[in-house]
Amino acid sequence: MSTLSVFPATHAAPDGASARAVVREVGLRDGLQSIATLVSTAHKIEWINAAYAAGQREIEVGSFVPARLLPQLADTAEVLAHAKTLPGLLASVLVPNYKGAERALECGAGLMVVPLSASHAHSLANLRKTPDAVVAEVARIRALRDASGSRCLIEGGVGTAFGCTLQGEVPESEVLRLMQALLDAGADRVSLADTVGYADPAWVARLFEKARALVGDRLWCAHFHDTRGMGLANAYAAWQVGITRFDACLAGIGGCPHAPGASGNVTTEDLVFMLERMGVATGIDVTALLALRQRVAGWLEGETLHGTLWQAGLPQNAARTVLREAATA
Amino acid sequence: MSTLSVFPATHAAPDGASARAVVREVGLRDGLQSIATLVSTAHKIEWINAAYAAGQREIEVGSFVPARLLPQLADTAEVLAHAKTLPGLLASVLVPNYKGAERALECGAGLMVVPLSASHAHSLANLRKTPDAVVAEVARIRALRDASGSRCLIEGGVGTAFGCTLQGEVPESEVLRLMQALLDAGADRVSLADTVGYADPAWVARLFEKARALVGDRLWCAHFHDTRGMGLANAYAAWQVGITRFDACLAGIGGCPHAPGASGNVTTEDLVFMLERMGVATGIDVTALLALRQRVAGWLEGETLHGTLWQAGLPQNAARTVLREAATA
Repeated sequence: MSTLSVFPATHAAPDGASARAVVREVGLRDGLQSIATLVSTAHKIEWINAAYAAGQREIEVGSFVPARLLPQLADTAEVLAHAKTLPGLLASVLVPNYKGAERALECGAGLMVVPLSASHAHSLANLRKTPDAVVAEVARIRALRDASGSRCLIEGGVGTAFGCTLQGEVPESEVLRLMQALLDAGADRVSLADTVGYADPAWVARLFEKARALVGDRLWCAHFHDTRGMGLANAYAAWQVGITRFDACLAGIGGCPHAPGASGNVTTEDLVFMLERMGVATGIDVTALLALRQRVAGWLEGETLHGTLWQAGLPQNAARTVLREAATA
Repeated sequence: MSTLSVFPATHAAPDGASARAVVREVGLRDGLQSIATLVSTAHKIEWINAAYAAGQREIEVGSFVPARLLPQLADTAEVLAHAKTLPGLLASVLVPNYKGAERALECGAGLMVVPLSASHAHSLANLRKTPDAVVAEVARIRALRDASGSRCLIEGGVGTAFGCTLQGEVPESEVLRLMQALLDAGADRVSLADTVGYADPAWVARLFEKARALVGDRLWCAHFHDTRGMGLANAYAAWQVGITRFDACLAGIGGCPHAPGASGNVTTEDLVFMLERMGVATGIDVTALLALRQRVAGWLEGETLHGTLWQAGLPQNAARTVLREAATA
């Protein structure tokens, strides 16, 4: 597998920033759940196989929610069963509650993400529970996991960490309190999500720095939306303060139903390209991702896709520029 | 004029980063020159007036090139004459050579940007001169300026500073050498441009840091294209190392003729929004820019425009979130 590593050894990452990063594909969950088109199980499996072949080793394959709510993800158990056959792939699912966690454990998911909305209003509207009720549910899920003898990881995903469209502001202190509460309740790790694209890079740096100071590397992942064009800038800011795991969606699908036409999640292929070009090894072949994007785009005809790299193509000097610099520095 | 300053006093900018920034509108030059549609002089004046009313105080109004090459900019003298009537506006023009500089001085431009391409191949293709021949031209332009008694500033714009589509790589050492040579030849200030969208934020940080170490605040401006989606990330990286001036195009027009369909220049309204949201005062009213964008879009029907903020709109919590944080911190 070839990568673009343009700063292989000479690039000095900022203090705390890493030369390696993981990009978790969440297009099959966060992406497809916001899209009307139903993608067949066979195509989902094709997507997972190609992402795996391109080097992706963490994929969120679906969500254990009632099929009547999200028919797009009704085949999550089947898709997960296939993903588990790929050696070294961490296949995760989203579980909104205890019931979902039971299914995730039954199906042998490698990781389950339990979403919590730091916005009280968003939490009630979306999960019909207060944030603290979700924390209590995580404690029950942890007990269930431990009793089952499963090694499935529990990730508490703190959404609307930078505000939300219903409530507007979400105090940082509340985000940090809930993040800590999730860990205290038994989550193995936590992530922070800018669910509606309100974050800016300085804010990201500040909040992620505080979060890392609080919980260290149990702060696992950054989840950004590109709603206001700052997705990559925010990812860069998070990387600078030591974050090495990012969620992203191929072709930038997904997004915010409250802002029709707006961009969706950070685009996988653009994010991987940025990281690789900065000398941050992702293990992912961008060219293979671009080919996969084209296939997925065919299955999503009529849907709005995003991303820029596919239009512009790779630079002429993708693999060379800084190698020469390194030689002459 | 209202701005969105969401981190008015509490936001700690990184060492060397500033709490103020200037966004120079270059849409009337870099934007329109790559667009087939001819925008009338009256509309250009309307654009300048509205940008000025929104708070913009630096605008590149056109280019003194032969009208047969760029008919879109044939009215630069007229547009400049109007711009000069607006108090406190620094109206700049691009001049590709001595002849253009003569016209800029005759017309009383406040600043002239002399482009130099650090890529030898690009320089020959685009300017029909080697980079060092451009340096020599700048020396003649400086002599002309001084002899004329004009106070027009000379900015040397080092383009293809991160590589180019013809030559591929452009060594950093060559970029820095040419930047210094421009200043030695008599340019008052220099800027660095990622003409074709090859830069990534880590590279930006590294090159701009080196450039600042070399020439201090005579390094004036950062000019990014969003060709591969990293325009805002690159601007953030440049801001972090102390850059306070950015070129941008309303609606993200302009761009790279070698990558059809690719994004153009960094989008003014998105960049201003990012800066303001980070607490960096630009003096520019984003809401007014969004209204202007809509008007300009009407004049450019059929052209591909870019940017994200206009689609998603301002966040609910634009002016409040961190004020509360500040009060409770």
